[in-house]
Amino acid sequence: MKLIIGNKAYSSWSLRGWLAAKQSGLAFEEITVPLYDEGWDERKREEDLAPSSGKVPILWDGDAVIWDSLAIIEYLSDKVGRDRFWPKDEVARGMARSMCAEMHSGYLPLRRECPMNIRKTFEDVTISGETRQDAIRILQLWAEARSRFGKEGPYLFGTFSAADIMFAPVVTRFITYGFTLPGFAAAYAETMMGHRWMEEWFQAAGEEEWTIEKFETPAT
Amino acid sequence: MKLIIGNKAYSSWSLRGWLAAKQSGLAFEEITVPLYDEGWDERKREEDLAPSSGKVPILWDGDAVIWDSLAIIEYLSDKVGRDRFWPKDEVARGMARSMCAEMHSGYLPLRRECPMNIRKTFEDVTISGETRQDAIRILQLWAEARSRFGKEGPYLFGTFSAADIMFAPVVTRFITYGFTLPGFAAAYAETMMGHRWMEEWFQAAGEEEWTIEKFETPAT
Repeated sequence: MKLIIGNKAYSSWSLRGWLAAKQSGLAFEEITVPLYDEGWDERKREEDLAPSSGKVPILWDGDAVIWDSLAIIEYLSDKVGRDRFWPKDEVARGMARSMCAEMHSGYLPLRRECPMNIRKTFEDVTISGETRQDAIRILQLWAEARSRFGKEGPYLFGTFSAADIMFAPVVTRFITYGFTLPGFAAAYAETMMGHRWMEEWFQAAGEEEWTIEKFETPAT
Repeated sequence: MKLIIGNKAYSSWSLRGWLAAKQSGLAFEEITVPLYDEGWDERKREEDLAPSSGKVPILWDGDAVIWDSLAIIEYLSDKVGRDRFWPKDEVARGMARSMCAEMHSGYLPLRRECPMNIRKTFEDVTISGETRQDAIRILQLWAEARSRFGKEGPYLFGTFSAADIMFAPVVTRFITYGFTLPGFAAAYAETMMGHRWMEEWFQAAGEEEWTIEKFETPAT
């Protein structure tokens, strides 16, 4: 298998695809395509926000090509067994699938105002009411998942699952943009940031040659 | 099972959830929540375009609540067997899953400029370059799916699948907005429009009490 990804510091969708490949337990080769170069502009970022053709991540597996992070999760789930990605319990799985789908198509204000940049921390960030609503909604979902289905471990549905993969970039945003989190969410974020794959990704992101001055302050 | 949907004439996401429920073969009760009333405004339509909390469709199945059309497809696929929703072949399934995910989060210009309205046909519609690009991309995907994987039937991947469910509202848009389609796509659209569930949905949409004058001309 080959996984094509963008810059580790900035490409939130790539992080999802990469975590999914890790979670599959299958061997894969990483191919990095720098997304942000001298010609980087707002339009490119918009494309990053609404992934479709020509976007990363892309998984190649023999003749199969899967070009979307949620589709990569489902494809790999088919391949290695659903229980590795999704809760066993039907009710929990229904909620996990809904949360992942909501993350996949939603939270545009949060994604627009707080683009993932894991090389920086931002202070005194002013966010819009819409972004605040996104954050509140996400915290509500996290709280419900943790309280109803998170008894058997520190992740959203207990053990590490597709839901953690899909929300991983949000965890980084909450931290680097200095959101004040309620206790349960701060604990969850700490768990996620301490996951060995997240540490591996952060390490690699820090070593990338790319730095975008525009990202010195959050976009508005 | 209960399925909560919006107006049949206008709610493209509801159509997807409803087709998924039909495809499951399971009995379900429909609950209609009118989305468009006197207070209907652009903001509500935006919410319809970016489905998240408080949106339709919602599937209730015992204690399980699934609030997104793609998640509903996956949940029902888990419940009744994957082969009823997804191609058996791994390569075909990888493409189908990618297409459905792309439809789920993408094509915002097409969705914004040509909102689903199956009670009207529009003539001499001027579309933006971005919407044209969306349409071209969709036709390319349809062509590839039909030519590579569509040998055993008239649908995108041969037999009726999740891909047809996700793109069903696009078929209605291509027709009601008078897009000129290449032969293979016109044939596919005709097949879809002749599907008994689509006919049933259209019949019910025509009998709804709601009519939105704003929809007399496409939104820009």
